[in-house]
Amino acid sequence: MLNNRSTMSVTSKLYEGKAKILYKTDVPEVLLADFKDDATAFNAQKRGSITNKGEINCNISSKLFQQLEENGIPTHYLDNPNPNQMRVKAVRIIPLEVVVRNIAAGSLCKQTGLELGTVLKEPLTEFYYKNDELGDPLLTRERLLLLELASQEQVEQIIHLALRINDFLKGFFGKCGITLVDFKLEFGLDSQKNLLLADEISPDTCRLWDTATDNPFDRILDKDRFRRDLGNVENAYSEVLQRVLKTIEANGG
Amino acid sequence: MLNNRSTMSVTSKLYEGKAKILYKTDVPEVLLADFKDDATAFNAQKRGSITNKGEINCNISSKLFQQLEENGIPTHYLDNPNPNQMRVKAVRIIPLEVVVRNIAAGSLCKQTGLELGTVLKEPLTEFYYKNDELGDPLLTRERLLLLELASQEQVEQIIHLALRINDFLKGFFGKCGITLVDFKLEFGLDSQKNLLLADEISPDTCRLWDTATDNPFDRILDKDRFRRDLGNVENAYSEVLQRVLKTIEANGG
Repeated sequence: MLNNRSTMSVTSKLYEGKAKILYKTDVPEVLLADFKDDATAFNAQKRGSITNKGEINCNISSKLFQQLEENGIPTHYLDNPNPNQMRVKAVRIIPLEVVVRNIAAGSLCKQTGLELGTVLKEPLTEFYYKNDELGDPLLTRERLLLLELASQEQVEQIIHLALRINDFLKGFFGKCGITLVDFKLEFGLDSQKNLLLADEISPDTCRLWDTATDNPFDRILDKDRFRRDLGNVENAYSEVLQRVLKTIEANGG
Repeated sequence: MLNNRSTMSVTSKLYEGKAKILYKTDVPEVLLADFKDDATAFNAQKRGSITNKGEINCNISSKLFQQLEENGIPTHYLDNPNPNQMRVKAVRIIPLEVVVRNIAAGSLCKQTGLELGTVLKEPLTEFYYKNDELGDPLLTRERLLLLELASQEQVEQIIHLALRINDFLKGFFGKCGITLVDFKLEFGLDSQKNLLLADEISPDTCRLWDTATDNPFDRILDKDRFRRDLGNVENAYSEVLQRVLKTIEANGG
């Protein structure tokens, strides 16, 4: 039933986020995610739009979710009824932004004084409270448990999955000629309490550096181009999509 | 030798902090801490002075360090050559602010949305990077180890000591009619790499609420009176000292 597009119709808007709108469908356990061109940064203090971002991110995310599923990572992905729309399994999102870092950048540098580009000896998995009002603050493990945002067991499971996803993505992007600096994941629980990777994986949620250049501006292929007004934002997003598609094709689909 | 005051003379200023000046003495392993009346808050953006604070905090800290030593907690305390001066063992300060929380207040509330006054099921031990330039940011265990601010073993030892200190202080302040909300500790390593409790324990570094009243302003007996312009700052500090002295006297010394 989940795969029969023709019977599915969108019923009502469930939630509108900064980058996506989620719609209910006539199948209770299926939602439709509509990827928007809207771009925000710094907790929505900076707002703009990136041409074709919705389609590009939906496409990149779909391809990566499929690749991850094939590698045994459970995700919310179902299919793409339209270029900027993804059908997903309905989940209750755990209000955590799970960040995996391979190279120091962004808030890690600001908050610790580590130099941008410092290669970490091992991947660093961090949790932030997904809460716009509080500005998505960093969470220690103890605070996360105190706030009952997830159970100890779920935290262990999330870290395990996040590191497996990092292993896969580092390898995959490596084949694309892209260094995976860091990325943000969100997880959700389906009606059977299974933990699924949710949200998206795209240049909005990853830091991606072109391995072909060491130039600290030219190498950026992700939302930092928008955050830092570096220009060529759409080209960068589009370049990532082209490389992802080429790598999948080269690997035999 | 350490106890022979007459032979000690101050040689040069080693370090001036926001609340204390540290002087070298003619004994290499002994420093003199001079407690100032200067008060700062919000990473020194707010500045002022509290009459007699130096003497009061030096006195409270000295008494608490002595009590802790009697309970088997190693501290840097040696003696009080003058009312606002403490002789201490020279240590290399570990650049961590170790905060133990029994009740939610301050930055914990701001960063997590927990309501002020929420009693925590168990004490929460947190680490902040003692770094004015970075604004003393919260550290996860992973960041602390990544920055090599302390070893895994030292972290375990610090948490163990911090919780023992909390056990003692909660009981002691309870006898004073004071609720210990939270407090900040600093630790240092002596020349033999022994971990010692350093810095001070005073109304500058603890949140202390008078158990005699539930009034959320009247009950405050600590630096929050200064931070939040509540007035009667010196009276509050002085009240804490009087109760500490009375409790020690009642316990036979």
